[in-house]
Amino acid sequence: MPFPDTRLTSLFRTESPIVQAPMAGAMDATLVIGACRGGALGSLPCAMLTPDAVRAEVGRIRAATSAPFNLNFFCHTSVPADPEVMAAWKAKLLPFYRELGLPEDAESKAPARAPFDESMLAVVEETRPNVVSFHFGLPEPRLLEGVKRAGAVVLGCATTRSEALWLEERGVDAIIAQGVEAGGHRGTFLPGSISSQPGTFALVPEVVDSVRVPVIAAGGIADGRGIAAALALGASGVQIGTAYLKCPESKIAPAFRALLAEAHADSTVVTNAMTGRPARGFPNRIVQGIGALVEDAPAFPHAAAAIAPLRASAEKSGSGAFSPYWAGQGVSLSHELSAEELTRALGHGALARLSALARG
Amino acid sequence: MPFPDTRLTSLFRTESPIVQAPMAGAMDATLVIGACRGGALGSLPCAMLTPDAVRAEVGRIRAATSAPFNLNFFCHTSVPADPEVMAAWKAKLLPFYRELGLPEDAESKAPARAPFDESMLAVVEETRPNVVSFHFGLPEPRLLEGVKRAGAVVLGCATTRSEALWLEERGVDAIIAQGVEAGGHRGTFLPGSISSQPGTFALVPEVVDSVRVPVIAAGGIADGRGIAAALALGASGVQIGTAYLKCPESKIAPAFRALLAEAHADSTVVTNAMTGRPARGFPNRIVQGIGALVEDAPAFPHAAAAIAPLRASAEKSGSGAFSPYWAGQGVSLSHELSAEELTRALGHGALARLSALARG
Repeated sequence: MPFPDTRLTSLFRTESPIVQAPMAGAMDATLVIGACRGGALGSLPCAMLTPDAVRAEVGRIRAATSAPFNLNFFCHTSVPADPEVMAAWKAKLLPFYRELGLPEDAESKAPARAPFDESMLAVVEETRPNVVSFHFGLPEPRLLEGVKRAGAVVLGCATTRSEALWLEERGVDAIIAQGVEAGGHRGTFLPGSISSQPGTFALVPEVVDSVRVPVIAAGGIADGRGIAAALALGASGVQIGTAYLKCPESKIAPAFRALLAEAHADSTVVTNAMTGRPARGFPNRIVQGIGALVEDAPAFPHAAAAIAPLRASAEKSGSGAFSPYWAGQGVSLSHELSAEELTRALGHGALARLSALARG
Repeated sequence: MPFPDTRLTSLFRTESPIVQAPMAGAMDATLVIGACRGGALGSLPCAMLTPDAVRAEVGRIRAATSAPFNLNFFCHTSVPADPEVMAAWKAKLLPFYRELGLPEDAESKAPARAPFDESMLAVVEETRPNVVSFHFGLPEPRLLEGVKRAGAVVLGCATTRSEALWLEERGVDAIIAQGVEAGGHRGTFLPGSISSQPGTFALVPEVVDSVRVPVIAAGGIADGRGIAAALALGASGVQIGTAYLKCPESKIAPAFRALLAEAHADSTVVTNAMTGRPARGFPNRIVQGIGALVEDAPAFPHAAAAIAPLRASAEKSGSGAFSPYWAGQGVSLSHELSAEELTRALGHGALARLSALARG
């Protein structure tokens, strides 16, 4: 039995309509290669890499597999840090500095999270990935045009129907509909309240009814049942992240892996305190101390700067108390398998589930 | 083709594994009768009715149909209003009183929302409904035993895996897994953060994996696709509310009906400001003015008392600016049909969707 909807497998030239979600900071080419070998569209998160690092990772993927893959970029509008906001934020975090015995003037350099630009477009033009996906909207038209001229299928991420319509109007080839269950940063880019963000069950069929391009469901999907359910809702495929975190190929800390093993659907929260943008993950000391959704966090990604010394200090002793451990609500639904095995299990599981439902 | 899972239709003796959700204040026996005639399990919300009113409504249902039906009760722990908290709450709402030209001492009697008690058990013993469902946990063991002795199948509502385990341990026959997409009051009864409540996509398979009794998926389900998806996730059936609000049989105000017609998946929020317990609905003036989740709201249901005069005054001029218009995130997925037609369309739609997925 084939997958009931072939729009994505035709677009991607993959075996299955599964996108392995790009998870910046938690993975590299090794996981992409496993997902590709399993028949999914592997995705390399590029937001925290330099152009040369992307070139090197693409080289590793190409050396290992001829399968299609996806390069994922952030495309937030870059804003300079506001010194007053940064000072107030630092002051708010000082109790944590004192707790860890850190000097107030500890070097606070956040990991780089640069938006897609000319230098990354040059990498796309050189490496010609089959697919390019964007988070936080789309890059400016000139850059987007360049990506399309380089022959890439373009994916955008929507957290509401309005965002899906916006993306379709600007010519994306497929839309990732990201329900509030999803781990990591919300792709949100149009104004709206974080408290009204839809779950996957409501978002996917509404987006399917609103656009003509294929829809990729994301959020809370981690096994064959979830893939079958997403297809039932009208999605053409799925994007899966958290399940891949459990693979031995992911690059997460042992403390993070331990949390994943014990977690349930209600173990994570959406917080903007770690980077300035809302993202779903395990509540850490920062979230427990100042709240999950705070109004005074510096703009993305500057909120992470004052947290960096706390994080580095705690991580030295193996603690993730100040680390952003992003994960979604489907965390309990998967088990540790290699990325290739997981991908095959997801595909087979979905087809088996569809077939079982049909038999009644 | 029959429904693939017959556990609920056997338990309820209904044609389809669909539960029409009880929606207190928005419906009466008329809607129950339509849902029953369409093959679903119709549910009468009893939380805002006197025992005699329940008797009268059951009489109306029985006169119209011999189909099985469900009586739904709240079973929160009743706490007296704290005068200090009530005074502070009233003070917080006074700007709205001034805006509407209401005297500060306007009579403020909230609609009654009594927990299940001896007098309601007497009604259950007399009327012998096929099914009894509880919201906010379960009544004390003595009352629960009485309901079972009266021959009713018992349903409980869980918003987390822990709550599902708690309910199963106490002997419910099936569990409603209520995802955060659902309209109306969250069934939450164990401690936990409202900000970590799972969406339907993540909650349902986790609960299915954790309990032996059949699971009824609720939240964001409003058409055949959603039912098929819930079954794919492992649910044995679904509970659907918001879609029934659009039926001519629902008793909602024209202003509420107008909101439903224009709404999308991101049109509602979870708020505790209207009653003291978190519930999903359209953000009104109260929510816009003081926030959706407030720490100083009086305990359920006392928060509604000081809002009652505002609500009554606004409703006189056809405005719902101070009314609790509860609705879920699947609001855009349904259209106005009679309750019987809607129920048949849901059942046929689900079977058609399952069959289409199987054909590939």
